[in-house]
Amino acid sequence: MVKKQNKKSALLIIGNEILSGRTKDSNTQYIAEKMSEIGVPLSEVRVVPDIEQRVIEALNALRQNYDYVFTTGGIGPTHDDITSECIAKAFGVEYGFHPEAYKILEDYYGEGEFTDPRKKMAKMPVVAKLIPNPVSGAPGFYVENVFTMAGVPRIMQSMLDYIVTLLEHGDAVRSLNISVQQPESKIAQALGEIQSRVPEVDIGSYPAYRDGVHQTNIVMRSTDEALLQSVYDEVETLVKGL
Amino acid sequence: MVKKQNKKSALLIIGNEILSGRTKDSNTQYIAEKMSEIGVPLSEVRVVPDIEQRVIEALNALRQNYDYVFTTGGIGPTHDDITSECIAKAFGVEYGFHPEAYKILEDYYGEGEFTDPRKKMAKMPVVAKLIPNPVSGAPGFYVENVFTMAGVPRIMQSMLDYIVTLLEHGDAVRSLNISVQQPESKIAQALGEIQSRVPEVDIGSYPAYRDGVHQTNIVMRSTDEALLQSVYDEVETLVKGL
Repeated sequence: MVKKQNKKSALLIIGNEILSGRTKDSNTQYIAEKMSEIGVPLSEVRVVPDIEQRVIEALNALRQNYDYVFTTGGIGPTHDDITSECIAKAFGVEYGFHPEAYKILEDYYGEGEFTDPRKKMAKMPVVAKLIPNPVSGAPGFYVENVFTMAGVPRIMQSMLDYIVTLLEHGDAVRSLNISVQQPESKIAQALGEIQSRVPEVDIGSYPAYRDGVHQTNIVMRSTDEALLQSVYDEVETLVKGL
Repeated sequence: MVKKQNKKSALLIIGNEILSGRTKDSNTQYIAEKMSEIGVPLSEVRVVPDIEQRVIEALNALRQNYDYVFTTGGIGPTHDDITSECIAKAFGVEYGFHPEAYKILEDYYGEGEFTDPRKKMAKMPVVAKLIPNPVSGAPGFYVENVFTMAGVPRIMQSMLDYIVTLLEHGDAVRSLNISVQQPESKIAQALGEIQSRVPEVDIGSYPAYRDGVHQTNIVMRSTDEALLQSVYDEVETLVKGL
């Protein structure tokens, strides 16, 4: 039996605020963990500024290279919210009022409060399908394999819950972890030997340096639980022997 | 007088641990802030896995599009540390023992402790120039416009201090910030109007949603302090009028 390959995903963060250092991105880690769980591992992240050409180029590169692409940020009511229009341009489809999104927002705000800036949030690729936003009304959307979410973490997370139901899940990527108060170099050769022997388990070695003490965190990841456990046991024996 | 343009930089993070969600990246924010200060704004970030072809492709794209490229991660002694070899391949230059790096590491560890895995850290593009590592010995390096640092934040930061002395600094990008407990949509039109009138100041509007209350953070950024202040004053008046 040929084992089915997991689908792969990528994340595009549209965010001057990350590139300027004003904001520390926290969405990546959340999305990465979720995608490991459902077996659609995150395989690339890009952060680009709010510049149309740059967003479109990155979108087109990622949507051709990965099964699923997530975007965060830039779908609000202000002048710097250009993501929706960029997605329409990247796909070469019409950008305009999305009737269903318009209706959702009209109901959410009430007629008198449904101002022009708020109406902008109903503009998107007209062929898009909507992603509900239980937190603050304005929906996300998807076109083919590109899923567009808000950047505000709480809203993004609620949209991701819905997106997860739309994706083709694979085998969960499980991980086990061993920490040792030794520099990496002490175990480098043995770890490398195990890695070449068992390529199905991804073995990462991450150094840390705290209070003058070298530490190494060894992270083993695989969709194959039995193999993962056997590598863990071997690494544990190795570490105890130090 | 034609004003000289600031040089632009990009960051390539080689890190399975970020893509799996195990580690939350903190290097981006540190580098972004530093680059704003010295007027070499960070214009793109990519995170790719420890896969040779992916690292090389990203490196080649970024080094052609930006004046300076920084990389973090993957220069240690273990099997998953492939960055140095990827950089040699991306530039098409010889990968091997760097005599100066070899000497530094030999002195750092002492002859008996300078094991094969540690010797690996002296392997890099032989044409590279070194970046000192006052924290843990093993140097970073640079080839043309690509600067290769360790991923451990403390080590990365000390390497960045040195790199900063090698770059052509531009006008610092200064920023001012106004927060208001109103949804973005209340100020979207007025902000958009100011932005079209003063394109030299980058105006970002960032929504937040806490305890059921909408907030908006308006961030103004520019290399022109006088213009920045005038936009700030205008936005302050606008916000007070809400």
